[in-house]
Amino acid sequence: MREATALGFDPGRVAILAHEGFPDRAKTALGVLRYADYDVAAVLDRELAGAGDHTVRDLVADDRVQDVPVVGRADEAPAFDTLVIGIAPIGGGFDRSWRGDVERALRAGADVVAGLHYRLNDDAAFVDLAAEHGARLVDVREPPADLTVSDGRAREVDATVVGTVGTDCSTGKMTTTCELVRAARARGIDTAMVPTGQTGILVAGWGIAIDRTVADFAAGATERLVTAAADRDLLVVEGQGSLVHPAYSGVTTSILHGAMPDALVLCHQAGRGAVHGYESFAIPPVGRVASLYESLADPVAPAGVVAGALDTHELDDGVDEALATYGDALDVPAADPVRDGADALVDAIVEATDLEP
Amino acid sequence: MREATALGFDPGRVAILAHEGFPDRAKTALGVLRYADYDVAAVLDRELAGAGDHTVRDLVADDRVQDVPVVGRADEAPAFDTLVIGIAPIGGGFDRSWRGDVERALRAGADVVAGLHYRLNDDAAFVDLAAEHGARLVDVREPPADLTVSDGRAREVDATVVGTVGTDCSTGKMTTTCELVRAARARGIDTAMVPTGQTGILVAGWGIAIDRTVADFAAGATERLVTAAADRDLLVVEGQGSLVHPAYSGVTTSILHGAMPDALVLCHQAGRGAVHGYESFAIPPVGRVASLYESLADPVAPAGVVAGALDTHELDDGVDEALATYGDALDVPAADPVRDGADALVDAIVEATDLEP
Repeated sequence: MREATALGFDPGRVAILAHEGFPDRAKTALGVLRYADYDVAAVLDRELAGAGDHTVRDLVADDRVQDVPVVGRADEAPAFDTLVIGIAPIGGGFDRSWRGDVERALRAGADVVAGLHYRLNDDAAFVDLAAEHGARLVDVREPPADLTVSDGRAREVDATVVGTVGTDCSTGKMTTTCELVRAARARGIDTAMVPTGQTGILVAGWGIAIDRTVADFAAGATERLVTAAADRDLLVVEGQGSLVHPAYSGVTTSILHGAMPDALVLCHQAGRGAVHGYESFAIPPVGRVASLYESLADPVAPAGVVAGALDTHELDDGVDEALATYGDALDVPAADPVRDGADALVDAIVEATDLEP
Repeated sequence: MREATALGFDPGRVAILAHEGFPDRAKTALGVLRYADYDVAAVLDRELAGAGDHTVRDLVADDRVQDVPVVGRADEAPAFDTLVIGIAPIGGGFDRSWRGDVERALRAGADVVAGLHYRLNDDAAFVDLAAEHGARLVDVREPPADLTVSDGRAREVDATVVGTVGTDCSTGKMTTTCELVRAARARGIDTAMVPTGQTGILVAGWGIAIDRTVADFAAGATERLVTAAADRDLLVVEGQGSLVHPAYSGVTTSILHGAMPDALVLCHQAGRGAVHGYESFAIPPVGRVASLYESLADPVAPAGVVAGALDTHELDDGVDEALATYGDALDVPAADPVRDGADALVDAIVEATDLEP
């Protein structure tokens, strides 16, 4: 936890609220179970719990995911220090039906952490209850109040900086970032994850939701994260959106120029041909998207796309062919880090930068 | 004034505060005097006024600038309805020495309008005085509270949309925007200025300071402006920053993809070789900057650089050569719109788009 830059919380043992969403619609819950170092006490999903006894491993066939009980209510979970809201409905609202569990957690003195648009700290009932029981409410999407414009200093850090970038939203940038960090650490490389969105922040325990900053300060906020972690050997900066996205490309650009990475990993979902939710906008051929990132990086801090991460989870077969096609189009090594881990991607980064393997 | 999108104010007759800054350090004051339709009562500059009787034309040799008296205090000016803060110190603060004039204006019932980082509406003394005298405090940098993400609809508008873009900050994007609007209107083209920064907002009387919006909403705010003005024949969208700027490129990208222009005018200052204030970042050759804008526009809404605007005000001689060199590098017509007006640039826009001349 880097207090200067974090929406600082040290969660201790956590319970994860994912009512009616686990596992498929609970990206944050899965991210924490798969990638965070925290000890997880339980997942709250009343629908699953009502249907019988479950643990996470009954539902997710992935041995990198912590196996914990699925319970129906906060007071049925083993003791925990922090309740994490692990689902995000479209629009980022807070579902009224979650109030009971949040209040039960606060009454037990547990902190509550959320990455929603809805701010826990704007809810008078929660604020009062938290004060009464000495608990904290943490809204991880809320940026620090003292952000400023970028000084253009990120390229000066000694650490090797890798950025994950995408052909679209939801193409695996957060997941690829986590897998790169895991694979690099497994080799003994001193690696920091640099989270720029709410799930990444919940996984890593620090970071800034760049999309929520004032537009003029977005690059500066990214620079602050990178310079705060500059004493590590490798930083993996989570990208957001896409340069070819009609709504989010500004955030993408701010992270690219704020972080000034040495190398990029381009994330794509196999078969995706149009921008998700903006179907009249075609995604250009992946090689052209890669060139666009490189062209935009170049005048500020040159960086090449050195590896490709392909999300193949919707493919029933043809995974190897899809990976080969993707790697050929980019002319770099490609892998699906969820299926295969990120070892091949770390190899490509070591090959392309001065990072010691 | 478009109420739905404006930080709405109808200023009536204005006085412009520019203490110790007029004319060279009072970009907003000069912009309003040169381009706004408002009737200006006076410029306040106590240093100039103390040195003798002046009018604006004694100090600015430009017959497009309104000629009004320069006075030392608000109560020495002819009657006015609105006091506009026409200077912006580095950092955007409010100079304590301006309080007297703001208070004198409020006591006389005049509204006060500012585009500073410092919010007039956060100043309790001003708020009380304004309430007492029925005056309004308007902070034009404050974005509307109900912004959302872009829907990707700007490319559907029937109007021809032109965007001014730059090789850097302070290369004449706002001025070129104003000159394009003036030249197009002089031909009878129904033209709207689409302001994205505080000076443009003060000149045009509507707009949103895109750099102050939440990063995720910056393209959506631009889209809102463009779609609100879609019933005109020509929209000229003021750009911000530069794609090659380490700190502000995200805002630049959001405006480009939010506005989805049909054509671009690239603004550059003759002789500028590095990013202002970030001198270790070289500005690439102008042709490469133009290509970068076109490459980034292409996947969302294709647009070519169809004309070049060159700020030559620091050149003592060699203006014609500089313009020829710039036009050749871009392979489009080039002009300095402050020296020559924007007629040649409008010709190039008519040539390249389906706008009726």
